Amino acid sequence: MKIRILKNDLNESIQHVSKAISSRTTIPILTGIKLEVNFQGVILTASDTDISIQAFIPAEDDKKTIVQVERPGSVVLPAKFFVEIIKKLPSQEIEMEVKDGFQTFIRSGSTDIQLVGLDPEEFPVLPSIEEDQVISIPGDLLRNMIKQTVFSISTQETTPILTGVLWNLSDSLFKFVATDRHRLASRTAPLEDADNVKFSNIVISGKTLNELSKIIPDQNTRVDIVVADNQVLFKIDRVLFYSRILDGTYPDTSKIIPTNYKTELVLDTKKLSESIDRAYLLSREEKTNIVRLQTLEDGTIEISSSSSELGKVTEQLEVAEFNGDPLRISFNSKYMLDVLKVVESEQLHIGFTGPMSPIIVKPVDESRSLYLILPYRTTN
Amino acid sequence: MKIRILKNDLNESIQHVSKAISSRTTIPILTGIKLEVNFQGVILTASDTDISIQAFIPAEDDKKTIVQVERPGSVVLPAKFFVEIIKKLPSQEIEMEVKDGFQTFIRSGSTDIQLVGLDPEEFPVLPSIEEDQVISIPGDLLRNMIKQTVFSISTQETTPILTGVLWNLSDSLFKFVATDRHRLASRTAPLEDADNVKFSNIVISGKTLNELSKIIPDQNTRVDIVVADNQVLFKIDRVLFYSRILDGTYPDTSKIIPTNYKTELVLDTKKLSESIDRAYLLSREEKTNIVRLQTLEDGTIEISSSSSELGKVTEQLEVAEFNGDPLRISFNSKYMLDVLKVVESEQLHIGFTGPMSPIIVKPVDESRSLYLILPYRTTN
Repeated sequence: MKIRILKNDLNESIQHVSKAISSRTTIPILTGIKLEVNFQGVILTASDTDISIQAFIPAEDDKKTIVQVERPGSVVLPAKFFVEIIKKLPSQEIEMEVKDGFQTFIRSGSTDIQLVGLDPEEFPVLPSIEEDQVISIPGDLLRNMIKQTVFSISTQETTPILTGVLWNLSDSLFKFVATDRHRLASRTAPLEDADNVKFSNIVISGKTLNELSKIIPDQNTRVDIVVADNQVLFKIDRVLFYSRILDGTYPDTSKIIPTNYKTELVLDTKKLSESIDRAYLLSREEKTNIVRLQTLEDGTIEISSSSSELGKVTEQLEVAEFNGDPLRISFNSKYMLDVLKVVESEQLHIGFTGPMSPIIVKPVDESRSLYLILPYRTTN
Repeated sequence: MKIRILKNDLNESIQHVSKAISSRTTIPILTGIKLEVNFQGVILTASDTDISIQAFIPAEDDKKTIVQVERPGSVVLPAKFFVEIIKKLPSQEIEMEVKDGFQTFIRSGSTDIQLVGLDPEEFPVLPSIEEDQVISIPGDLLRNMIKQTVFSISTQETTPILTGVLWNLSDSLFKFVATDRHRLASRTAPLEDADNVKFSNIVISGKTLNELSKIIPDQNTRVDIVVADNQVLFKIDRVLFYSRILDGTYPDTSKIIPTNYKTELVLDTKKLSESIDRAYLLSREEKTNIVRLQTLEDGTIEISSSSSELGKVTEQLEVAEFNGDPLRISFNSKYMLDVLKVVESEQLHIGFTGPMSPIIVKPVDESRSLYLILPYRTTN
């Protein structure tokens, strides 16, 4: 293998695939990035067995030469050092040559690097995926759906299925659900040209979805998603992102979501967020994060928290609408703040069915998001 | 105590004094900030016994009312929560009232806070300092002198005196020295109006100097420094910063600095820094950080590092000047990068007296800074 390649293009692709490198892997070949060169360009691959990412650098793009291929070939190079050194090379032009025993020579300006390469034959082969079930979704919508659900996944490895986000697609409606048994987030979006695709119980690791989010560019990009038996493949421009589907059956959460309420509030999102944040500051010192919400006789609400050592915070808040019974309820303020951070609507609808029943938060201007928080049982 | 105070002014002073709060203190009263109100304004004080910081908020500034004092008094409030909550209060106006048993009420907009205050009589009294030895120095110069020396202090608590920066002043020349026995940094500056002040062996904790740096504003400020028996007091605008002087005698470092060289180089700072940074990336993987510098026959130099597992980086670098004998020397590249980060000169002079003798780095355009790095003994 012998090529000349432009630094920025190589660096961009390395940054993409390096997201699949795990610092904790015990398999030596997986600490590396595989480079495969043919006359079409360079393919970079990295994998931690759960995620695999592949990026293609074309030899030519828009009539600009990016890679000059003198001799095709392939090698696996140590990721951690390779990722750091390429971006720091002194010249825009990089020469790479693989010699006997995968010894790799990298030259740029007056920098000479000699790297111990590994045999690319040892690198795991990526799964071949049947492209039967394919959907296409705008990149920013996918990123949003991830952001608005993934914070509710469980971090407990004892229930691995809950560390993922549940995906369902039927009747062209794509739905994400995440829950850690104390709270739940769900987000749906209608898809175009998805009439003939249908799947259920596809669960993707939340950690994987966070990594995926970082790769989706800010500009107008579409992401193609191929759903197969135990893998999902995301196609983003010239990047292929493979993720394992989590094993197991996701619990049925449809029955825990109440559909009618005893008390309903409509509130300003920002003001509620600031009030709860102040009450949270105190409750955090108690390590409980418990904040109390209670309706007052004058039609406003009171948000409060207290700490035996420090004191007490009391916030009075106006509501835009208030229907139903008076209420006094306690909840984990951190969970509520997590919801308020990702909600884009200026106003929120909060529904309650009693002090021991789930709290339901929805943006008022759309019906595609729903957040559930279980209250705390408190004695007073 | 009962006052109305403007949020931004209170917050700014809290941020200053909070730098003296240690999260590891075992003395309950020192987890708090003391507020003292009289008709001139509010004095805030915090202390971890090594550092004490006091900030004054005047009742009126430039004819603008900052504090309306209804009733003087004082209280100690829990710092961690107080620091966070004040900046998040909803209104620019804050009302504070201390009632029986130091119960403190804070009101702002529709937020009500009740805090358990502590008895201000329990708060340690700040040292009274004789103002015999006073010097005045531009804030940005002091910040620079700290930045250019403090990185060389020792982090080992086994030699406490070396965790500080040594100060000497004689003949109006102010000198900072820091060393961890493997490297040394020194910086001098001439002072105005300091003919009658003279001190030596004043050692101030590097950690303290870093905190002090954060308080010195960017604008044109002068800092007055009062040096007393076992304390140094810094006066910065309306902030008083007290620091303990470290006990012990600082080692004499004057003899280890060579004055003539066998090999001398003049190099471009940025290019040297980038070359060493690339070599460092590889040596870091070996956990040694060892980089080799060697003069070549064509008048250039070679910077290189190698790792048995990964390979080797070789950099060729042009020099502006080269005098003396050929040389081959190894050193800790992290130490060299630390120096190159704080040097402001575009070109550097590096002097060598042999492969086992100290390396001396100086900026070419001024003689006020000097850096010393001990080489590594290597077998090849």
